[in-house]
Amino acid sequence: MNINVQRLSRRLAELSEIGKIEETGVCRPALSPVEKRAFDLVGGWMEEAGMKVRIDDFGNLIGRLEGEDAAAPVLMIGSHLDSQPYGGRFDGAAGVLAGVEAAAALAEQGIRPVRPVEVVSFCDEEGWRWGKGLFGSRGITGRLEVDDLKRTDKDGVTREQALRDFGCDPDRMAESVYLPGSIHAYLELHIEQGPVLDQLQVPLGVVTGISGPVWLTVEFRGFAGHAGSVPMSLRRDALVGAAEAILALRRIVAQEEGSPGVGTVGDLKVFPNSRNIIPEAVTFTVDLRDIDLERRHRYERELRETIASIAVRHGLDYTIRDDFRSEPRYCAEWIQSLIREEGRRLGYDLPALMSGPFHDALALSYVCDYGMIFVRCKNGISHNPLEFTSTEDLALGTELLFRTVRRMIQTKPVERSWTGDKHE
Amino acid sequence: MNINVQRLSRRLAELSEIGKIEETGVCRPALSPVEKRAFDLVGGWMEEAGMKVRIDDFGNLIGRLEGEDAAAPVLMIGSHLDSQPYGGRFDGAAGVLAGVEAAAALAEQGIRPVRPVEVVSFCDEEGWRWGKGLFGSRGITGRLEVDDLKRTDKDGVTREQALRDFGCDPDRMAESVYLPGSIHAYLELHIEQGPVLDQLQVPLGVVTGISGPVWLTVEFRGFAGHAGSVPMSLRRDALVGAAEAILALRRIVAQEEGSPGVGTVGDLKVFPNSRNIIPEAVTFTVDLRDIDLERRHRYERELRETIASIAVRHGLDYTIRDDFRSEPRYCAEWIQSLIREEGRRLGYDLPALMSGPFHDALALSYVCDYGMIFVRCKNGISHNPLEFTSTEDLALGTELLFRTVRRMIQTKPVERSWTGDKHE
Repeated sequence: MNINVQRLSRRLAELSEIGKIEETGVCRPALSPVEKRAFDLVGGWMEEAGMKVRIDDFGNLIGRLEGEDAAAPVLMIGSHLDSQPYGGRFDGAAGVLAGVEAAAALAEQGIRPVRPVEVVSFCDEEGWRWGKGLFGSRGITGRLEVDDLKRTDKDGVTREQALRDFGCDPDRMAESVYLPGSIHAYLELHIEQGPVLDQLQVPLGVVTGISGPVWLTVEFRGFAGHAGSVPMSLRRDALVGAAEAILALRRIVAQEEGSPGVGTVGDLKVFPNSRNIIPEAVTFTVDLRDIDLERRHRYERELRETIASIAVRHGLDYTIRDDFRSEPRYCAEWIQSLIREEGRRLGYDLPALMSGPFHDALALSYVCDYGMIFVRCKNGISHNPLEFTSTEDLALGTELLFRTVRRMIQTKPVERSWTGDKHE
Repeated sequence: MNINVQRLSRRLAELSEIGKIEETGVCRPALSPVEKRAFDLVGGWMEEAGMKVRIDDFGNLIGRLEGEDAAAPVLMIGSHLDSQPYGGRFDGAAGVLAGVEAAAALAEQGIRPVRPVEVVSFCDEEGWRWGKGLFGSRGITGRLEVDDLKRTDKDGVTREQALRDFGCDPDRMAESVYLPGSIHAYLELHIEQGPVLDQLQVPLGVVTGISGPVWLTVEFRGFAGHAGSVPMSLRRDALVGAAEAILALRRIVAQEEGSPGVGTVGDLKVFPNSRNIIPEAVTFTVDLRDIDLERRHRYERELRETIASIAVRHGLDYTIRDDFRSEPRYCAEWIQSLIREEGRRLGYDLPALMSGPFHDALALSYVCDYGMIFVRCKNGISHNPLEFTSTEDLALGTELLFRTVRRMIQTKPVERSWTGDKHE
């Protein structure tokens, strides 16, 4: 092992105390004081590894290890320190700490990279606070959208305000965007968040791509009335409409036996939410994913048609807002090969996996080649305090990340010119 | 007319400014500073009418017009000034203002009642803030339950704390209980909150009884996980279970063509409520009513069985909490007759109606005879800012209330002894 397993394990434990919930979980909302404490802690470790540390105006924490050629495109390693509201300690944090550990190992071995190496904790990967994720990684790649700053969280705080409170200057965000061609490649280590590696009994996997979700927000509007006096036949109950849509989504994605499509309503709010009043309005989110983009499109169309017919049947008005959508984005073959080769040297034939969850790598895929390493997580549990990855598996994944990085920064490769977005 | 229509109408308009929402609605939560302002305003009008005013330790506003015999059982007229969170200006307020106006008319005409007359605004009739209503009327009739004070609202404030903040002393509540036999009878005017009078094109109705609800709180517990990676077949999604229960309730109460049964899920909360996480827990309320108690029992049993089978099917745990239940409570025949007679003198044959919504009268029915007057409301809309009752209808109802009260306090009737709870 080139990396320091004790240090990695100790740091993960220390980081997990910040925003700790229950015995094993964390809640570190993006741009919160809790995330700031995590940035301070991890930023300190970056400095220990000889990195120059900054927080950019998107709220990303960035540590930079200088290369022989300071002007060369950087090798970026990233993930995120924000968590789900009811999340585990590995999702995101594992990747950031693995990046810091890989950089520290480079420094300790006196390896002088030919190109700069940056380790990044991206702002608001999770996206639950403002209903839209990958903020920091979309930010540095110039892919923000007009409504990004104006969105409000459940307490009415805009993302813009939260950025200012965090010490960022949203007016100067443009200066934090990476110019085209300035990122050589992007690497990310992440826990799998699914059950495949655990079932195969293999600690690590190489990611072939990210299937990516479509995120919608649906609102049904009916008419409030007294729960004791309005006959059932006269009701326009928005929650009844929402209940039908929830079950319809489940039916639609399960129609093909064994297909990997998944559909989730995770967030739902009722107005006025009084036990004595027929619900007037219900807002809920839809998360729909499939590695087969055509099939996902078909599922989405079926869902939209079903929502329209539910609205007619119950006398409801409705709107469907498009929050986020991505098509599958594939990892660069040459990076996959490097990861596979180094995995074999560690004694493992790495299985190839498509990722259902998205990651910051998805945003980076629009500006550079990328690769990802997946680490086994117990029973595939994630977005839950019970999420668990063993120290051994995380250490092995971090060692693989280090070795992959070393391959990418030791000899100056023929510069691959980024020729725009080849996936679109 | 014996009552002052302009004054009544002006006062309703003035009261409606307190807690005003949208153009025509109000939000006056029980025991809030907003309700306190309403108490101050209406308490002043009570004093103008010659009443002695107090707020008791249950948070009830009570105005007392002394009678010839101060020790005689009181004639109580009541309703409530708290409102739904997204409510109208008539629900409750109409009855309190009608009571104050009736008392004022008595005083102005120099009618000295043989027994004391009290006008009461009961605390927390609506029940949404702490999930359980009729607090003040259950309080003075000695029908509070052990958990009443410990319940918390959505901000974590207990009812006990809210009472203290309101200026009440929960430790002295026992002193505010009315002793058995100390209430002669109870009268309440209320808007119908249903469509019957409006469809019959009659301004007023006489209530025959209150059917009363059963209120339950159901919780499903499943298992959180990443919305992008857990296959549909492995999910234990609490919101899917809740959606099935919502639709089952609707199916159960609608199974008998034309039956008046109603079932409502009005309040639902998802945990952790993130678009990216499979819902781990969902809590929702059930409001189930029928004038046929046997049928309501049957519906409830069916719902409970359905919830149990949903839980098995989706791998969920569940609990069902009993929050409140009442059997139908009938109005005293002699008071119904008085109201009908006085209605006829005003030129109307009052239709008889059973009330689906409950009222403070429900709690009073356990300690004295009671009667109720319903006033037409447009399209049966209530628990909605669009709730509307015309000035003419409200004035006519108030005049009927005044005339009924006059019949009940002018000549000392043979005292009817309350012989306990004849309905149980």
